Amino acid sequence: MSKSMVGSHAVWPHEDDPIFGLAKRAGEAKEKFGKEKVIDSTLGSLVDDDGNLICFDSVYDELKNLPNSEIAAYAQVAGQGDFLESVIEVLFKEYKPEGHIRAVATPGGTGAVRHGIWNYTEPGDTFIVGDWYWSPYQTMADEFERKLKIYPFFNEKGGYNVEAFKENFNSIIDSQKRVLTIFNTPANNPTGYSISDEEWDEILEIIKEKAKDKENKITILLDVAYIDYAGNDRRSFFKKFGNLPDNIFVMIAFSMSKGYTMYGMRSGAAIGISSNESIADEFYYSLSHANRSNWSNGVRGAMKVLTNLYRDKDKKAKYEAELESIRKLLVDRAKAFVDASKEVGLVTLPYRDGFFVTIPCENSKDVSEELIKDNLFAVPLKKGLRFAVCAVSKEKCAKSPALIKKALDKING
Amino acid sequence: MSKSMVGSHAVWPHEDDPIFGLAKRAGEAKEKFGKEKVIDSTLGSLVDDDGNLICFDSVYDELKNLPNSEIAAYAQVAGQGDFLESVIEVLFKEYKPEGHIRAVATPGGTGAVRHGIWNYTEPGDTFIVGDWYWSPYQTMADEFERKLKIYPFFNEKGGYNVEAFKENFNSIIDSQKRVLTIFNTPANNPTGYSISDEEWDEILEIIKEKAKDKENKITILLDVAYIDYAGNDRRSFFKKFGNLPDNIFVMIAFSMSKGYTMYGMRSGAAIGISSNESIADEFYYSLSHANRSNWSNGVRGAMKVLTNLYRDKDKKAKYEAELESIRKLLVDRAKAFVDASKEVGLVTLPYRDGFFVTIPCENSKDVSEELIKDNLFAVPLKKGLRFAVCAVSKEKCAKSPALIKKALDKING
Repeated sequence: MSKSMVGSHAVWPHEDDPIFGLAKRAGEAKEKFGKEKVIDSTLGSLVDDDGNLICFDSVYDELKNLPNSEIAAYAQVAGQGDFLESVIEVLFKEYKPEGHIRAVATPGGTGAVRHGIWNYTEPGDTFIVGDWYWSPYQTMADEFERKLKIYPFFNEKGGYNVEAFKENFNSIIDSQKRVLTIFNTPANNPTGYSISDEEWDEILEIIKEKAKDKENKITILLDVAYIDYAGNDRRSFFKKFGNLPDNIFVMIAFSMSKGYTMYGMRSGAAIGISSNESIADEFYYSLSHANRSNWSNGVRGAMKVLTNLYRDKDKKAKYEAELESIRKLLVDRAKAFVDASKEVGLVTLPYRDGFFVTIPCENSKDVSEELIKDNLFAVPLKKGLRFAVCAVSKEKCAKSPALIKKALDKING
Repeated sequence: MSKSMVGSHAVWPHEDDPIFGLAKRAGEAKEKFGKEKVIDSTLGSLVDDDGNLICFDSVYDELKNLPNSEIAAYAQVAGQGDFLESVIEVLFKEYKPEGHIRAVATPGGTGAVRHGIWNYTEPGDTFIVGDWYWSPYQTMADEFERKLKIYPFFNEKGGYNVEAFKENFNSIIDSQKRVLTIFNTPANNPTGYSISDEEWDEILEIIKEKAKDKENKITILLDVAYIDYAGNDRRSFFKKFGNLPDNIFVMIAFSMSKGYTMYGMRSGAAIGISSNESIADEFYYSLSHANRSNWSNGVRGAMKVLTNLYRDKDKKAKYEAELESIRKLLVDRAKAFVDASKEVGLVTLPYRDGFFVTIPCENSKDVSEELIKDNLFAVPLKKGLRFAVCAVSKEKCAKSPALIKKALDKING
């Protein structure tokens, strides 16, 4: 007999998460050599200069002051009504696109991305994303028996590779008549790039051209997990998603993880935009069915926190002040890293916003191991090294590029 | 063009959850006539005699006293190690089966059931359950393109219909060579039935007979969402799942929703048992992959609460005392309902434990509507009416059977 009991589609390597393994080694180094001697750039969470996880007081005071029943009770399958109303405002701010907008609560941004891939592709379909991407997109493609096709993210000028997008988008839509295209922007994970409004105009022109064929079905999935650290003007692109043809559906994966320092509370939302009301309704009911089938309903206490921090003026002001101070901390750290990189001649991908700066390189695993000798821990990606400025003090951000340059030179010559 | 943008498998009726709609009408009736005049038996949550949701102090004091970072940080994909160790002890107590046991954290019991159906069947497969079942099993079958086959739950004596199970189990395993069979016990939702140890022996004999063919793959999925209200001796059946042949895999869906009054915190676990270590490991990695692809990781604060309420002796004692007092409240209410039913000649399904008593009947929707005229709100099922003793005071539990009998006689003559 075969020594397997799961379905044939559900057999996966017996491997633990590599980032977690690296974070564990960083923890051991801190024990051994002292926190100040170690640069731990492994985790995608905000950490203060003393190495403690940043948790907004405005958020946790609110959570802990909720009546127990507000945390204990089941939420509705699609999410609490006041949360769904609030999250739309919180997401778009003054850039709400025109159209029919619906929201459905999900566990983090992951749940929303998962629904995008599951609900808006057919089994076996190919969906596309630029080649610097959050690796769970591939995990999901594997899990759900879809295919992920990647295209070059950057062009030679260090801008978004609109030409490569066009070629791949057109090729898939022509053969499949349906395509899901994911953009992780602004504040892309892992590069820190944000697609500009001008680049968005070019992208949307390509998409609209293909939407002229009314048989084509195009879904744009925007993963905006890091948007709250990108500065408010980075939301202006949302306006462009109003008044699109019926056969372009736009879906946004919103996460409370980073913007509310609530990673472990697993709350987010999928927001859908359509010029056609029945297509917006279809989104709501299709995702509600998927909610019920996968996790029943969401974390009610987290939803209530977002709602209250949006609707109460004083709480809102306190929350926004905390967020802004941490956003500035992040900007400072990233600037220190990028400036120091220029000084030592370390090439980084063009950083705009967010938690990460990425150094393109070959043999990233070897480079990462070499850096561990200097007690610097950074995550090796397929095509580079991810440095988490969110987790490293400004001082250490300024020191790291020289160490990385040295390791790169040693490994890649 | 077709006015649909989702994949063809993801088109679902534009319908809201009927239980929620009924609960809303009950709420309106309470507003209009006063709480004391309305019997609201719609929701599957524990409510005290004054109509307030029961939230254990031991649980919410613990949650609210956690350091913010314990709530804020990401949990590991499979769940925190101390939680996974604790949940196995909490689940089995003194009845831990022999074998290789692994646990993976999930959002409530739903996430674990979902993994059971997704990971342990092939697309298109049929899985089986008795005909009094939690309706999301069917929702999941639809969502994941599996088929649900039901067989008669009760035999003529009011016991578990082992013969009907045998016939259906054998027929599916013979044709499919693989079968997933779900049992929602003890304290079945919606009937309140608990399969006895003697019935389990008969069921396992049937299963073991088919396991002699080493090509057959059999997965037993136990949904024990209500086990904490079933009395400790109802766990003795767990011992029977030790030392089974390799091709019988046992998976348990554990939920913190009811036992910890943490419905809205979405925490639970899937626990797998196998005599074969590599099959237990396969379970762990297969479900970890599914975790990562669907919701990334679980609610860390909820996991920590369970761990602390298990590991700290004083906290454990306080939690267990609260649970026991509410369990007794539930036993009293159910007894009041069942006794009053006998008095007025209302036939109920054989209740043993849990949140619900069910009255088998035809035209349940009409009966439910008729009862609303008396301000009694109970959930119509396909084959009966579900009365939530968890949500109704003892006094009202005693009054309800007469009202139900009257409505039944009026509608069904």
